[in-house]
Amino acid sequence: MDVLVSLKHDGKLSDYVNKAYAAKHLCDVKVVTGDQSTFYTHRLVLSAFSEFFQRKISGQQESHNMVIPIDVDSAVFKVLMEFMYTGQLSVTTAERIALYHASVILEMDTAQELLQQAYISSDWHGMMTNKVTKSSEDNDLDVKVTEETDVKVTVSDIQEEKTLDGATTSNMSELTT
Amino acid sequence: MDVLVSLKHDGKLSDYVNKAYAAKHLCDVKVVTGDQSTFYTHRLVLSAFSEFFQRKISGQQESHNMVIPIDVDSAVFKVLMEFMYTGQLSVTTAERIALYHASVILEMDTAQELLQQAYISSDWHGMMTNKVTKSSEDNDLDVKVTEETDVKVTVSDIQEEKTLDGATTSNMSELTT
Repeated sequence: MDVLVSLKHDGKLSDYVNKAYAAKHLCDVKVVTGDQSTFYTHRLVLSAFSEFFQRKISGQQESHNMVIPIDVDSAVFKVLMEFMYTGQLSVTTAERIALYHASVILEMDTAQELLQQAYISSDWHGMMTNKVTKSSEDNDLDVKVTEETDVKVTVSDIQEEKTLDGATTSNMSELTT
Repeated sequence: MDVLVSLKHDGKLSDYVNKAYAAKHLCDVKVVTGDQSTFYTHRLVLSAFSEFFQRKISGQQESHNMVIPIDVDSAVFKVLMEFMYTGQLSVTTAERIALYHASVILEMDTAQELLQQAYISSDWHGMMTNKVTKSSEDNDLDVKVTEETDVKVTVSDIQEEKTLDGATTSNMSELTT
């Protein structure tokens, strides 16, 4: 028995599925957001990245052209859909909190981890939990992060401002006070 | 705008889809082989790895619970299905030729490339083409291989035998003479 291994296999599947999403091809679920936008998508992809969708979809396994309503805004859900299809989460300052809340509602573990990582690495205060406490040791925050980090965080343009005493704060803290 | 990138994205999708296949979960296509075996599978996966299935499925886009008959034996198709779901192609000596022919029929480019690579690297004579010619330079075979090789070939137990003059031949040549 010889075992031949294709190193491009996972990427090929992912690329194909992403193209199918862009072309609305082979879609079998409609997701309707809180503001009544409709997203045409695939059961396999939703189930792979969201426990919430996995449960909804398994519950109606025989249904063709399923419709799933969600209590998430379309602008935010669009970003999470892009994440499910590409692995990239594009976060604007204004949407940080809404994105995190949506990733909790939709039980998207990997998206949550990424946002938590970004929080730790870039000082997005107050975003991940209402109970952020900072101990006397720097960065000992009340935020759980998985021990095995296999995510890459690219924080490109956090707008920071210096306080009078030289400490750095992000503009996130303005949103959450 | 910050872009957070999940390095495990492609693998996570692939793993989920593979588990769904094993559990016959969310399947939407039945493939019926030449010897009347039925495989429960997913349109997205078949379409991603086989131009043949991509064409068949696009042609009947509105149909739920599609059935696609193929002129391939179930033992061989099982190996190709495993390849579509895992990226690993398990090749036994007896199935080499049938596998290659099936990958041609089903237009599975990556599987064909892998088999061609294995052929080149392990001296599987007569497998890839009926017109194998060996020039005076060693290994200058009449087989096209893509220039960009991003495949990993693990040839574990090719059974070789030494001829009297010390040249190596594989037992493949016995099958094709």
